[in-house]
Amino acid sequence: LNIALLAGDGIGPEVIDQAVKVSNAIAKKYNHEINWTPALTGAAAIDAVGEPYPDDTHAVCEAADAVLFGAIGHPKFDNDPSATVRPEQGLLKMRQKLGLFANVRPTFTFPSLIDKSPLKRERIEGTDLVFLRELTGGIYFGKRGREDNGNTAYDTCTYTRVEVERLARKGFELAMNRSKKLCCVDKANVLETSRLWRETVQGLEKEYPEVTVSYEFVDAVAMRLVQWPNSYDVLITENLFGDILTDEASVISGSMGLMPSASLGTKTRLYEPIHGSYPQAAGKDIANPLATVLSAAMMFEDFNLTEEAQAIKDVVNKSLVEGIVSEDLAEGKKAYKTSEIGDWLA
Amino acid sequence: LNIALLAGDGIGPEVIDQAVKVSNAIAKKYNHEINWTPALTGAAAIDAVGEPYPDDTHAVCEAADAVLFGAIGHPKFDNDPSATVRPEQGLLKMRQKLGLFANVRPTFTFPSLIDKSPLKRERIEGTDLVFLRELTGGIYFGKRGREDNGNTAYDTCTYTRVEVERLARKGFELAMNRSKKLCCVDKANVLETSRLWRETVQGLEKEYPEVTVSYEFVDAVAMRLVQWPNSYDVLITENLFGDILTDEASVISGSMGLMPSASLGTKTRLYEPIHGSYPQAAGKDIANPLATVLSAAMMFEDFNLTEEAQAIKDVVNKSLVEGIVSEDLAEGKKAYKTSEIGDWLA
Ligand SMILES: CC(C)[C@H](C(=O)O)[C@@H](O)C(=O)O
Ligand SMILES: CC(C)[C@H](C(=O)O)[C@@H](O)C(=O)O
Repeated sequence: LNIALLAGDGIGPEVIDQAVKVSNAIAKKYNHEINWTPALTGAAAIDAVGEPYPDDTHAVCEAADAVLFGAIGHPKFDNDPSATVRPEQGLLKMRQKLGLFANVRPTFTFPSLIDKSPLKRERIEGTDLVFLRELTGGIYFGKRGREDNGNTAYDTCTYTRVEVERLARKGFELAMNRSKKLCCVDKANVLETSRLWRETVQGLEKEYPEVTVSYEFVDAVAMRLVQWPNSYDVLITENLFGDILTDEASVISGSMGLMPSASLGTKTRLYEPIHGSYPQAAGKDIANPLATVLSAAMMFEDFNLTEEAQAIKDVVNKSLVEGIVSEDLAEGKKAYKTSEIGDWLA
Repeated sequence: LNIALLAGDGIGPEVIDQAVKVSNAIAKKYNHEINWTPALTGAAAIDAVGEPYPDDTHAVCEAADAVLFGAIGHPKFDNDPSATVRPEQGLLKMRQKLGLFANVRPTFTFPSLIDKSPLKRERIEGTDLVFLRELTGGIYFGKRGREDNGNTAYDTCTYTRVEVERLARKGFELAMNRSKKLCCVDKANVLETSRLWRETVQGLEKEYPEVTVSYEFVDAVAMRLVQWPNSYDVLITENLFGDILTDEASVISGSMGLMPSASLGTKTRLYEPIHGSYPQAAGKDIANPLATVLSAAMMFEDFNLTEEAQAIKDVVNKSLVEGIVSEDLAEGKKAYKTSEIGDWLA
């Protein structure tokens, strides 16, 4: 396996290191060979070469069988509206150039952690849902700019039927492999793009007659997601709604540090934790590496290395049960360092 | 007081009736005279005159000292992407024509209901936050349409500095009257409109040196809002983010049926429950009227009738403590009818 390794910013390098340790241990046990090719992204790439997603990095990703990605973002750019180069541009450029149109974000609970959630046990027990977030369209990639001497700003949200259909098909297929329940999240009572989403998904229903489809407004889902998360299974949605709702959903599991993601593309696949670069923790060896380790498990799964993926999930579960956890989960007990957890898992 | 009465759709008429009963009881007790002028909106208005916000209704609202509003929306329009007239258009037209630019949505907990929340007691105790949602701009009112034979859809999000500043000033003023903490919610790492928001709010900071301002991304807020709601006080945000986040926040209180809202405008003020038209319950006399009754309390407060407002809040609290509640809060105990609750409160 040739894997591009994009550690990125903040805690990215630290959590990526642990996923590499674990993946290498798996490779050794199951007789695979993994070639890791590191490449620069984000603020780290801006500092080094003035560009958050350099062409060299893109070439490495294109040549790889998959990309393992840490996080992007640095606060020095956030409060400077005049900055012209931003780390996040690298992330968006990467998603677009690699055609990573479907971001798969599962949300599930760990029996050993269920009481760490801010939500009550009876509300979240059994929650196992997946968001499919459209990742290369919508307001993230539409025309934007200023007019009237900078006093008017605009962003454009655009979707084509083809973009919606390709994402929706992945959703129907995923639903067929799960509980055959699909929820299309939109704001069709206001937005024209949402109406295109809704009519496109409606048009596909007859091709997947076994799947029960519901259509819900994004505001209602933002509510029900914390009220009755286990009433959902597969949810499909556009880019910005997906950004907001998947972060919200990550709360269910009790820690942002746990949830992995996969992005399916036309050119390659990318695996990353859904937490951000968490700059306050950078370099301190305190971040939770599990989301990244579980992202590596998703990668093995997509290579049809099911046993390998399961072995990773099992050891992660074991670490939680035995309390080999970082400070976000320690609750007064001993907090292990990021690197110690990686060693233990490996 | 001349109050325009817009009952609207679904449970709107039923909950409005109770708010009128309670307001009339207050008027009698404190020697005020309220003239209610009913007018049509929403699906009800489409059915009657083919238009969801008729000119006659607008004239009634403009002439009134305030508007008390129920809800708008009917499912028969939701799954019909080809419908050209929609109830929601009436709501948006009303907001725009009345210049209702600032939607004030408080979220608080009732000690007697705290265990009804899906969130754990220790996470929500003491929560008392207010969203100021911009209500007449953004992607709700930008140019939208189709191209390419209907296969491409677009929506435009636009903000001007003047629009942002007028909302932000309300936020700073509100913060000055509360804990002097303001959070500006945006997506400045992606959107140009968010960068305009951020730079405009930053520009106002020096005029309100006592207010501590934080800037947070909408996805992070969607998360923290359910993790640590009581870490927030005043939050300001654009229209669509406000739509999503305020619905999410309403979960904290344990029922959507509890949260009131006020919209401040250039021409009048409007008071409405944040729940929707809840069509499944329409006509059944089972809806929770408290959000509407508390909206009427906000109305009295804005008329500087503080004692009157407090009397309403007190009796609402009393009804909760004594269990005079609708089925959403009854939890196996006796559920009172909408009209019975109104009578009891009055
Ligand atoms: C960093 C940011 C641009 C990004 C997004 O909004 O997509 C992040 O929040 C995510 O969800 O991956
Ligand atoms: C009905 C709908 C158009 C409306 C909105 O999105 O503003 C509603 O959700 C609200 O929050 O008042």
